[in-house]
Amino acid sequence: MIDFYFDFISPYGYLAAMQVEDLAKKYDRKVEWHPMLLGVSVMNVMGLKPLMETPLKGPYVAADLPRLASLYNVPLSFPKHGIPKPLPPARAFCWVKEQAPERAGEFAMAVYKAQWQEGKNISEPEVLANLVQTVGLNGERLLEALESETLSLSLREKVDASIKRGVFGSPTFAVDDHMIWGCDRLWMLEHWLANKSWSSLAKVSSFPF
Amino acid sequence: MIDFYFDFISPYGYLAAMQVEDLAKKYDRKVEWHPMLLGVSVMNVMGLKPLMETPLKGPYVAADLPRLASLYNVPLSFPKHGIPKPLPPARAFCWVKEQAPERAGEFAMAVYKAQWQEGKNISEPEVLANLVQTVGLNGERLLEALESETLSLSLREKVDASIKRGVFGSPTFAVDDHMIWGCDRLWMLEHWLANKSWSSLAKVSSFPF
Repeated sequence: MIDFYFDFISPYGYLAAMQVEDLAKKYDRKVEWHPMLLGVSVMNVMGLKPLMETPLKGPYVAADLPRLASLYNVPLSFPKHGIPKPLPPARAFCWVKEQAPERAGEFAMAVYKAQWQEGKNISEPEVLANLVQTVGLNGERLLEALESETLSLSLREKVDASIKRGVFGSPTFAVDDHMIWGCDRLWMLEHWLANKSWSSLAKVSSFPF
Repeated sequence: MIDFYFDFISPYGYLAAMQVEDLAKKYDRKVEWHPMLLGVSVMNVMGLKPLMETPLKGPYVAADLPRLASLYNVPLSFPKHGIPKPLPPARAFCWVKEQAPERAGEFAMAVYKAQWQEGKNISEPEVLANLVQTVGLNGERLLEALESETLSLSLREKVDASIKRGVFGSPTFAVDDHMIWGCDRLWMLEHWLANKSWSSLAKVSSFPF
Protein backbone atom coordinates (compact mmCIF):
# COMPACT_ATOMS: atom_id res chain seq x y z
CA MET A 1 0.00 0.00 0.00
CA ILE A 2 1.05 3.57 -0.72
CA ASP A 3 -0.80 6.23 1.24
CA PHE A 4 -1.03 9.26 -0.99
CA TYR A 5 -1.84 12.60 0.67
CA PHE A 6 -2.89 15.48 -1.56
CA ASP A 7 -4.64 18.84 -1.70
CA PHE A 8 -6.50 19.72 -4.91
CA ILE A 9 -5.17 23.29 -4.78
CA SER A 10 -1.62 21.94 -5.19
CA PRO A 11 -0.19 21.71 -8.72
CA TYR A 12 2.67 19.62 -7.31
CA GLY A 13 0.04 17.27 -5.90
CA TYR A 14 -1.52 17.11 -9.35
CA LEU A 15 1.80 16.23 -11.04
CA ALA A 16 2.27 13.38 -8.56
CA ALA A 17 -1.37 12.24 -8.80
CA MET A 18 -0.94 11.71 -12.54
CA GLN A 19 1.89 9.24 -11.87
CA VAL A 20 1.32 7.52 -8.53
CA GLU A 21 -1.08 4.78 -9.74
CA ASP A 22 1.27 3.67 -12.54
CA LEU A 23 4.23 3.67 -10.19
CA ALA A 24 2.32 1.63 -7.58
CA LYS A 25 1.18 -0.87 -10.21
CA LYS A 26 4.78 -1.37 -11.34
CA TYR A 27 5.60 -2.64 -7.84
CA ASP A 28 2.32 -4.44 -7.14
CA ARG A 29 1.09 -1.91 -4.64
CA LYS A 30 -2.30 -0.31 -4.20
CA VAL A 31 -2.75 3.42 -3.59
CA GLU A 32 -4.98 4.80 -0.87
CA TRP A 33 -5.88 8.41 -1.56
CA HIS A 34 -6.09 10.76 1.45
CA PRO A 35 -7.17 14.38 1.42
CA MET A 36 -5.10 16.91 3.37
CA LEU A 37 -5.40 20.71 3.52
CA LEU A 38 -2.39 22.96 3.09
CA GLY A 39 -4.38 25.75 4.72
CA VAL A 40 -4.40 23.69 7.92
CA SER A 41 -0.89 22.17 7.85
CA VAL A 42 1.12 25.05 6.41
CA MET A 43 -0.78 28.03 7.76
CA ASN A 44 -2.40 26.89 11.01
CA VAL A 45 -0.01 24.22 12.30
CA MET A 46 3.34 25.28 10.88
CA GLY A 47 2.60 29.01 10.95
CA LEU A 48 4.01 29.60 7.45
CA LYS A 49 2.68 31.52 4.44
CA PRO A 50 1.08 30.17 1.27
CA LEU A 51 3.78 29.07 -1.16
CA MET A 52 3.10 31.62 -3.89
CA GLU A 53 2.96 34.47 -1.39
CA THR A 54 6.35 33.62 0.10
CA PRO A 55 9.08 35.99 -1.14
CA LEU A 56 11.75 34.28 -3.29
CA LYS A 57 9.89 30.96 -3.22
CA GLY A 58 6.90 32.24 -5.25
CA PRO A 59 8.99 33.10 -8.34
CA TYR A 60 10.99 29.88 -7.95
CA VAL A 61 7.85 27.75 -7.96
CA ALA A 62 6.43 29.64 -10.94
CA ALA A 63 9.54 28.72 -12.94
CA ASP A 64 9.75 25.24 -11.49
CA LEU A 65 6.26 23.89 -12.19
CA PRO A 66 6.43 24.01 -16.01
CA ARG A 67 9.84 22.33 -16.15
CA LEU A 68 8.78 19.60 -13.71
CA ALA A 69 5.61 19.02 -15.74
CA SER A 70 7.74 18.77 -18.87
CA LEU A 71 10.19 16.35 -17.25
CA TYR A 72 7.32 14.14 -16.10
CA ASN A 73 5.50 14.53 -19.40
CA VAL A 74 2.30 15.64 -17.65
CA PRO A 75 0.20 18.42 -19.25
CA LEU A 76 -0.16 21.40 -16.91
CA SER A 77 -1.91 24.70 -17.46
CA PHE A 78 -2.79 27.41 -15.03
CA PRO A 79 -6.55 28.04 -15.14
CA LYS A 80 -7.89 31.58 -15.45
CA HIS A 81 -9.73 31.30 -12.14
CA GLY A 82 -6.43 30.54 -10.38
CA ILE A 83 -6.14 28.42 -7.25
CA PRO A 84 -9.53 26.88 -6.37
CA LYS A 85 -11.16 26.96 -2.95
CA PRO A 86 -9.96 23.77 -1.29
CA LEU A 87 -13.03 22.69 0.69
CA PRO A 88 -15.64 21.83 -1.97
CA PRO A 89 -13.44 19.39 -3.94
CA ALA A 90 -11.96 17.87 -0.78
CA ARG A 91 -15.45 17.31 0.64
CA ALA A 92 -16.63 15.85 -2.64
CA PHE A 93 -13.68 13.49 -2.53
CA CYS A 94 -14.63 12.35 1.00
CA TRP A 95 -18.16 11.70 -0.21
CA VAL A 96 -16.99 9.62 -3.17
CA LYS A 97 -14.60 7.67 -0.93
CA GLU A 98 -17.53 6.83 1.35
CA GLN A 99 -19.94 5.94 -1.46
CA ALA A 100 -17.55 4.06 -3.75
CA PRO A 101 -14.12 3.66 -2.17
CA GLU A 102 -12.82 1.64 -5.13
CA ARG A 103 -13.35 4.63 -7.42
CA ALA A 104 -11.91 7.31 -5.12
CA GLY A 105 -8.54 7.49 -6.91
CA GLU A 106 -10.22 7.72 -10.29
CA PHE A 107 -12.38 10.58 -9.03
CA ALA A 108 -9.40 12.42 -7.51
CA MET A 109 -7.56 12.20 -10.82
CA ALA A 110 -10.61 13.49 -12.70
CA VAL A 111 -10.89 16.47 -10.32
CA TYR A 112 -7.19 17.22 -10.62
CA LYS A 113 -7.35 17.07 -14.41
CA ALA A 114 -10.41 19.33 -14.48
CA GLN A 115 -8.49 21.95 -12.50
CA TRP A 116 -4.95 21.67 -13.86
CA GLN A 117 -5.53 20.51 -17.43
CA GLU A 118 -9.00 21.62 -18.46
CA GLY A 119 -9.29 24.99 -16.73
CA LYS A 120 -12.50 24.10 -14.88
CA ASN A 121 -13.19 25.68 -11.51
CA ILE A 122 -13.43 22.73 -9.13
CA SER A 123 -14.64 24.99 -6.34
CA GLU A 124 -18.03 25.05 -8.11
CA PRO A 125 -20.47 22.39 -6.88
CA GLU A 126 -21.91 21.97 -10.39
CA VAL A 127 -18.49 21.09 -11.78
CA LEU A 128 -18.02 18.54 -9.00
CA ALA A 129 -21.52 17.12 -9.60
CA ASN A 130 -20.60 16.50 -13.24
CA LEU A 131 -17.35 14.87 -12.21
CA VAL A 132 -18.94 12.39 -9.78
CA GLN A 133 -21.19 11.23 -12.62
CA THR A 134 -18.09 10.14 -14.53
CA VAL A 135 -17.42 7.62 -11.75
CA GLY A 136 -21.02 6.37 -11.74
CA LEU A 137 -22.38 8.39 -8.82
CA ASN A 138 -25.35 10.74 -8.63
CA GLY A 139 -24.51 14.43 -9.01
CA GLU A 140 -27.73 15.61 -7.34
CA ARG A 141 -26.92 13.55 -4.26
CA LEU A 142 -23.46 15.08 -4.10
CA LEU A 143 -24.96 18.59 -4.20
CA GLU A 144 -27.13 17.72 -1.20
CA ALA A 145 -24.23 16.13 0.64
CA LEU A 146 -22.03 19.20 0.08
CA GLU A 147 -24.49 21.18 2.21
CA SER A 148 -24.35 18.71 5.11
CA GLU A 149 -22.52 19.02 8.40
CA THR A 150 -21.70 15.29 8.22
CA LEU A 151 -19.51 15.72 5.17
CA SER A 152 -17.79 18.74 6.64
CA LEU A 153 -16.95 16.69 9.76
CA SER A 154 -15.78 13.76 7.69
CA LEU A 155 -13.18 15.95 5.96
CA ARG A 156 -12.14 17.53 9.25
CA GLU A 157 -11.46 14.09 10.74
CA LYS A 158 -9.35 13.07 7.78
CA VAL A 159 -7.35 16.29 7.88
CA ASP A 160 -6.77 15.88 11.63
CA ALA A 161 -5.52 12.36 10.94
CA SER A 162 -3.09 13.66 8.30
CA ILE A 163 -1.66 16.18 10.78
CA LYS A 164 -1.39 13.48 13.43
CA ARG A 165 0.60 11.38 11.01
CA GLY A 166 2.95 14.31 10.39
CA VAL A 167 1.85 15.14 6.87
CA PHE A 168 2.43 18.80 6.00
CA GLY A 169 2.92 19.02 2.23
CA SER A 170 1.20 18.00 -0.98
CA PRO A 171 2.05 15.50 -2.30
CA THR A 172 3.18 13.24 0.54
CA PHE A 173 3.67 9.51 0.12
CA ALA A 174 3.67 7.18 3.12
CA VAL A 175 4.94 3.70 2.45
CA ASP A 176 6.01 1.00 4.94
CA ASP A 177 6.23 3.68 7.67
CA HIS A 178 8.41 5.99 5.58
CA MET A 179 7.11 9.42 4.73
CA ILE A 180 8.29 11.06 1.53
CA TRP A 181 7.31 14.63 0.73
CA GLY A 182 7.37 16.28 -2.63
CA CYS A 183 6.74 15.67 -6.29
CA ASP A 184 10.50 15.98 -6.82
CA ARG A 185 11.02 12.83 -4.76
CA LEU A 186 9.28 10.28 -6.92
CA TRP A 187 12.78 8.89 -7.47
CA MET A 188 13.06 8.27 -3.73
CA LEU A 189 9.66 6.61 -3.55
CA GLU A 190 10.61 4.38 -6.46
CA HIS A 191 13.95 3.56 -4.87
CA TRP A 192 12.14 2.35 -1.77
CA LEU A 193 9.58 0.35 -3.74
CA ALA A 194 12.32 -1.30 -5.78
CA ASN A 195 14.80 -2.00 -2.97
CA LYS A 196 12.98 -1.70 0.36
CA SER A 197 16.10 -0.11 1.78
CA TRP A 198 17.90 3.21 1.83
CA SER A 199 21.10 1.61 0.67
CA SER A 200 23.29 3.58 -1.66
CA LEU A 201 21.89 4.62 -5.01
CA ALA A 202 25.24 3.70 -6.49
CA LYS A 203 24.41 0.06 -5.86
CA VAL A 204 21.33 0.37 -8.03
CA SER A 205 22.56 2.34 -11.00
CA SER A 206 24.74 5.28 -11.79
CA PHE A 207 22.82 8.09 -10.17
CA PRO A 208 20.33 8.99 -11.42
CA PHE A 209 20.38 8.01 -15.12
CA MET B 1 29.84 26.56 -14.79
CA ILE B 2 27.64 25.50 -11.89
CA ASP B 3 27.05 28.16 -9.27
CA PHE B 4 26.69 26.35 -5.97
CA TYR B 5 25.09 28.27 -3.09
CA PHE B 6 25.46 26.86 0.40
CA ASP B 7 25.29 27.63 4.11
CA PHE B 8 27.64 25.69 6.42
CA ILE B 9 24.86 25.25 8.98
CA SER B 10 22.89 23.20 6.45
CA PRO B 11 23.31 19.40 6.49
CA TYR B 12 21.48 19.25 3.16
CA GLY B 13 24.08 21.68 1.82
CA TYR B 14 26.78 19.37 3.14
CA LEU B 15 25.28 16.30 1.41
CA ALA B 16 25.25 18.20 -1.88
CA ALA B 17 28.73 19.69 -1.34
CA MET B 18 30.17 16.17 -1.10
CA GLN B 19 28.84 15.39 -4.59
CA VAL B 20 28.75 18.56 -6.67
CA GLU B 21 32.39 18.57 -7.83
CA ASP B 22 32.22 14.99 -9.10
CA LEU B 23 28.95 15.66 -10.86
CA ALA B 24 30.34 18.81 -12.49
CA LYS B 25 33.49 16.98 -13.63
CA LYS B 26 31.36 14.29 -15.26
CA TYR B 27 29.89 16.97 -17.54
CA ASP B 28 33.04 19.09 -17.97
CA ARG B 29 31.78 21.92 -15.82
CA LYS B 30 33.50 23.94 -13.13
CA VAL B 31 31.86 24.76 -9.80
CA GLU B 32 31.84 28.23 -8.32
CA TRP B 33 31.13 28.12 -4.60
CA HIS B 34 28.96 30.93 -3.16
CA PRO B 35 28.11 31.47 0.49
CA MET B 36 24.50 32.28 1.39
CA LEU B 37 22.88 32.64 4.81
CA LEU B 38 19.64 30.87 5.69
CA GLY B 39 19.22 33.33 8.55
CA VAL B 40 18.91 36.11 5.99
CA SER B 41 16.91 34.37 3.24
CA VAL B 42 14.56 32.22 5.30
CA MET B 43 14.10 34.36 8.38
CA ASN B 44 14.58 37.96 7.25
CA VAL B 45 13.44 37.92 3.61
CA MET B 46 10.88 35.11 3.54
CA GLY B 47 9.69 35.60 7.10
CA LEU B 48 9.73 31.88 7.90
CA LYS B 49 11.09 29.89 10.85
CA PRO B 50 14.27 27.81 11.07
CA LEU B 51 13.66 24.37 9.57
CA MET B 52 14.09 22.34 12.75
CA GLU B 53 11.85 24.67 14.73
CA THR B 54 8.99 24.37 12.25
CA PRO B 55 6.25 22.04 13.51
CA LEU B 56 5.84 18.84 11.44
CA LYS B 57 8.84 19.71 9.26
CA GLY B 58 11.38 19.34 12.06
CA PRO B 59 10.60 15.65 12.72
CA TYR B 60 10.39 14.99 8.98
CA VAL B 61 13.86 16.42 8.39
CA ALA B 62 15.30 14.49 11.34
CA ALA B 63 14.11 11.24 9.74
CA ASP B 64 15.00 12.36 6.23
CA LEU B 65 18.65 13.35 6.63
CA PRO B 66 20.00 9.90 7.58
CA ARG B 67 18.20 8.14 4.74
CA LEU B 68 19.31 10.73 2.19
CA ALA B 69 22.90 10.43 3.44
CA SER B 70 22.61 6.65 3.11
CA LEU B 71 21.19 6.88 -0.41
CA TYR B 72 24.00 9.21 -1.46
CA ASN B 73 26.59 7.17 0.40
CA VAL B 74 27.86 10.23 2.27
CA PRO B 75 28.83 9.86 5.97
CA LEU B 76 26.76 12.17 8.17
CA SER B 77 26.80 12.57 11.92
CA PHE B 78 25.21 15.20 14.11
CA PRO B 79 27.89 16.87 16.22
CA LYS B 80 27.41 17.30 19.96
CA HIS B 81 27.64 21.08 19.66
CA GLY B 82 24.69 21.06 17.22
CA ILE B 83 24.19 23.65 14.49
CA PRO B 84 27.22 25.98 14.32
CA LYS B 85 27.06 29.76 14.22
CA PRO B 86 26.97 30.59 10.53
CA LEU B 87 29.06 33.77 10.35
CA PRO B 88 32.59 32.62 11.30
CA PRO B 89 32.83 29.80 8.73
CA ALA B 90 31.10 31.87 6.02
CA ARG B 91 33.51 34.75 6.60
CA ALA B 92 36.47 32.38 6.58
CA PHE B 93 35.22 31.03 3.27
CA CYS B 94 35.09 34.57 1.82
CA TRP B 95 38.65 35.17 2.97
CA VAL B 96 39.91 31.94 1.36
CA LYS B 97 38.05 32.77 -1.85
CA GLU B 98 39.81 36.14 -1.94
CA GLN B 99 43.25 34.76 -1.08
CA ALA B 100 43.21 31.60 -3.16
CA PRO B 101 40.06 31.36 -5.29
CA GLU B 102 41.21 28.10 -6.90
CA ARG B 103 41.13 26.40 -3.49
CA ALA B 104 37.80 27.79 -2.27
CA GLY B 105 35.83 24.64 -3.07
CA GLU B 106 38.39 22.44 -1.36
CA PHE B 107 38.22 24.63 1.73
CA ALA B 108 34.41 24.61 1.78
CA MET B 109 34.42 20.83 1.62
CA ALA B 110 36.96 20.64 4.45
CA VAL B 111 34.81 22.92 6.62
CA TYR B 112 31.67 20.93 5.85
CA LYS B 113 33.41 17.65 6.69
CA ALA B 114 34.76 19.08 9.95
CA GLN B 115 31.23 19.98 11.00
CA TRP B 116 29.13 17.11 9.63
CA GLN B 117 31.57 14.22 9.71
CA GLU B 118 34.20 14.97 12.34
CA GLY B 119 32.14 16.70 15.00
CA LYS B 120 34.31 19.82 15.09
CA ASN B 121 32.74 23.14 15.96
CA ILE B 122 33.35 25.29 12.89
CA SER B 123 32.12 28.39 14.71
CA GLU B 124 35.45 28.41 16.57
CA PRO B 125 38.11 30.59 14.93
CA GLU B 126 40.86 28.17 15.97
CA VAL B 127 39.16 25.31 14.14
CA LEU B 128 38.87 27.48 11.04
CA ALA B 129 42.51 28.57 11.36
CA ASN B 130 43.58 24.92 11.30
CA LEU B 131 41.39 24.26 8.29
CA VAL B 132 42.82 27.11 6.18
CA GLN B 133 46.27 25.65 6.75
CA THR B 134 45.15 22.47 4.98
CA VAL B 135 44.68 24.56 1.83
CA GLY B 136 48.06 26.23 2.19
CA LEU B 137 46.99 29.48 3.83
CA ASN B 138 48.13 31.10 7.05
CA GLY B 139 45.90 30.44 10.04
CA GLU B 140 47.17 33.45 11.99
CA ARG B 141 46.27 35.75 9.12
CA LEU B 142 42.76 34.29 9.02
CA LEU B 143 42.32 34.98 12.75
CA GLU B 144 43.21 38.64 12.16
CA ALA B 145 40.94 38.86 9.14
CA LEU B 146 38.00 37.39 11.08
CA GLU B 147 38.12 40.46 13.32
CA SER B 148 38.02 42.91 10.40
CA GLU B 149 35.11 44.95 9.16
CA THR B 150 36.30 44.33 5.57
CA LEU B 151 35.60 40.62 5.77
CA SER B 152 32.24 41.16 7.39
CA LEU B 153 31.30 43.50 4.51
CA SER B 154 32.58 41.05 1.94
CA LEU B 155 30.23 38.35 3.22
CA ARG B 156 27.35 40.79 3.41
CA GLU B 157 27.83 41.72 -0.27
CA LYS B 158 27.86 38.09 -1.32
CA VAL B 159 24.74 37.30 0.69
CA ASP B 160 22.95 40.32 -0.81
CA ALA B 161 23.92 39.06 -4.25
CA SER B 162 22.48 35.62 -3.47
CA ILE B 163 19.15 37.16 -2.43
CA LYS B 164 19.14 39.34 -5.55
CA ARG B 165 19.55 36.21 -7.64
CA GLY B 166 16.56 34.63 -5.86
CA VAL B 167 18.48 32.05 -3.83
CA PHE B 168 16.65 31.09 -0.63
CA GLY B 169 17.69 27.54 0.25
CA SER B 170 20.83 25.51 0.83
CA PRO B 171 21.89 23.89 -1.41
CA THR B 172 20.91 25.80 -4.55
CA PHE B 173 22.46 25.13 -7.93
CA ALA B 174 22.32 27.73 -10.70
CA VAL B 175 23.25 26.48 -14.13
CA ASP B 176 22.66 28.11 -17.53
CA ASP B 177 20.11 30.47 -15.93
CA HIS B 178 18.18 27.65 -14.26
CA MET B 179 17.92 27.57 -10.51
CA ILE B 180 17.53 24.23 -8.77
CA TRP B 181 16.92 24.06 -5.05
CA GLY B 182 17.47 21.09 -2.81
CA CYS B 183 19.73 18.16 -2.23
CA ASP B 184 16.87 15.93 -3.35
CA ARG B 185 17.10 17.44 -6.83
CA LEU B 186 20.54 16.29 -7.85
CA TRP B 187 18.70 14.12 -10.38
CA MET B 188 17.24 17.29 -11.94
CA LEU B 189 20.62 19.00 -12.06
CA GLU B 190 22.10 15.96 -13.71
CA HIS B 191 19.23 15.77 -16.18
CA TRP B 192 19.96 19.34 -17.24
CA LEU B 193 23.71 18.77 -17.48
CA ALA B 194 23.16 15.65 -19.58
CA ASN B 195 20.41 16.95 -21.87
CA LYS B 196 20.34 20.75 -21.66
CA SER B 197 16.58 20.58 -21.86
CA TRP B 198 13.59 19.82 -19.69
CA SER B 199 12.33 17.26 -22.13
CA SER B 200 10.63 14.21 -20.73
CA LEU B 201 12.58 11.95 -18.45
CA ALA B 202 10.97 9.05 -20.31
CA LYS B 203 13.05 9.96 -23.33
CA VAL B 204 16.21 9.47 -21.33
CA SER B 205 15.52 6.29 -19.39
CA SER B 206 12.77 4.65 -17.47
CA PHE B 207 12.28 7.02 -14.60
CA PRO B 208 14.30 7.06 -12.47
CA PHE B 209 16.15 3.71 -12.41
